[in-house]
Amino acid sequence: MAELPRFFSFEDDGRYGIGVEFGGQVHDASRGIVRQYGARTILDLIETEYFERACEQIPRGLVELEEMPKHFTWMPPVLRPPKIIAMVQNYQAHAAEFKNEAPSEPVWFAKTGNSLTGHEQPIILPAWLESRVDHEVELAVIIGRRAKDVPQDQWRDYVLGYSIINDVSARHLQKTDRENKHPWTRCKNFDTFTPFGPYLVPAASVNDPQKLKISCRVGAEVRQNSTTSDMIHPVAKLIAVLSKFMTLEPGDVIATGTPAGVGKLLAGDSCECEIEGLGVLRNPVQKR
Amino acid sequence: MAELPRFFSFEDDGRYGIGVEFGGQVHDASRGIVRQYGARTILDLIETEYFERACEQIPRGLVELEEMPKHFTWMPPVLRPPKIIAMVQNYQAHAAEFKNEAPSEPVWFAKTGNSLTGHEQPIILPAWLESRVDHEVELAVIIGRRAKDVPQDQWRDYVLGYSIINDVSARHLQKTDRENKHPWTRCKNFDTFTPFGPYLVPAASVNDPQKLKISCRVGAEVRQNSTTSDMIHPVAKLIAVLSKFMTLEPGDVIATGTPAGVGKLLAGDSCECEIEGLGVLRNPVQKR
Repeated sequence: MAELPRFFSFEDDGRYGIGVEFGGQVHDASRGIVRQYGARTILDLIETEYFERACEQIPRGLVELEEMPKHFTWMPPVLRPPKIIAMVQNYQAHAAEFKNEAPSEPVWFAKTGNSLTGHEQPIILPAWLESRVDHEVELAVIIGRRAKDVPQDQWRDYVLGYSIINDVSARHLQKTDRENKHPWTRCKNFDTFTPFGPYLVPAASVNDPQKLKISCRVGAEVRQNSTTSDMIHPVAKLIAVLSKFMTLEPGDVIATGTPAGVGKLLAGDSCECEIEGLGVLRNPVQKR
Repeated sequence: MAELPRFFSFEDDGRYGIGVEFGGQVHDASRGIVRQYGARTILDLIETEYFERACEQIPRGLVELEEMPKHFTWMPPVLRPPKIIAMVQNYQAHAAEFKNEAPSEPVWFAKTGNSLTGHEQPIILPAWLESRVDHEVELAVIIGRRAKDVPQDQWRDYVLGYSIINDVSARHLQKTDRENKHPWTRCKNFDTFTPFGPYLVPAASVNDPQKLKISCRVGAEVRQNSTTSDMIHPVAKLIAVLSKFMTLEPGDVIATGTPAGVGKLLAGDSCECEIEGLGVLRNPVQKR
């Protein structure tokens, strides 16, 4: 199989662009993709159903590529996902570290768009926030087609690609929130608490999403180090169960839960989330 | 003060349009608003910051209006809000009916876009769902400008307008979900569980959002009947508190909680939510 491009979004001087990486190089594909497919964003490309065609045509030189601007800003690969659904305790060892029994059925909450940020952008800890703030590396699944009541064995038809999410969590606030019975919406949706990227990797480039090494480093210290084979509810089941309760839409993101080893982030840290084949999502931590 | 138009979104034969109601008549303003402001949706109109200008110019005949198509479908006034934040137990008597102490600080969860539906569109109860499903009429606040750390006395600068939301809830599922520690995301986000509309009413048309009669009828039976003055945390405080934790974005929707009297919906019911000055949001209930 020919190497497929990996996609990313960027911002340059107020302009949003589409970048592609392949053969070890990054290129500005914005103009080429508008001309060829009429799409201005990766979400447009997904909604117009030209994403797979672009995956094939870009390596064949059929889409005009230009040099990347010198100082661009990495943005979340899908800038405005219709929704972001995040799974709770979907790795046995992570549930155990919180002394919880792992849920027998998938449990989830919603992350909101304001919390998204890109590769290399800072995770900002509000100066007034006393809570410990944790990193949580997660495999992100991006939906390609409207999905409702998907049979578990047909999950692949609905997955467009994969990426990395760091589900940053204000842990002590989460504890208070649990007592107040709203465990996740508030403590996980501060601005910049959902680093996402760097790339959207086409599904065809990932043979089996349940066989990927997944890790998180803070500075030189390896904090999380596991494999997606340890997921309790695999991607196939998540798509079946979620699509029973709600329509999944093109561009939706599912964060599939984090393995054991979550730990705190401090101002000055650099947090690196890595998943085999998907790249490294790196974010400095700042207090403001 | 001259009467301002009320805005709505509609769909006609695959086309999305912008409608305006004033002087007791509805008009198709789609073409006029594109020409005048370059906006194709109400969210565009908000993001381009032309909403208030349109409010002034439409009654003065400065925007071309056309006849509404014969058989249009009502859509949520904001088709794709960046996020929908819903408040928990924000009326004393509603907290009491669940034997809960009302939370001392605002508590919230997120509703997802798939759950939105328009005026006159069915609320669909999944045939497999055994849970009781309840209506919850709520005042919806639509944000007009990016809002972060808003001082409570400046809340009005950030409110674009008001509408009605029916925060439909699978109540028994909610109970199970609470045991599983995810009380709200799943049971409130089935497709069609967030009827929204019919109108987006400009903020300038509502003198005081804390002095509005709010009610819900199922058939001839009045189920909820209260006033927004009974809110525990008023709109001003909600905007201050929410914007401390997260950036509120143009087009965001805050559902401000429901008064006492929630009750179950059955297939064949017609549910009418009414708020003084904002209209009536009516939805038939179907099982599928």
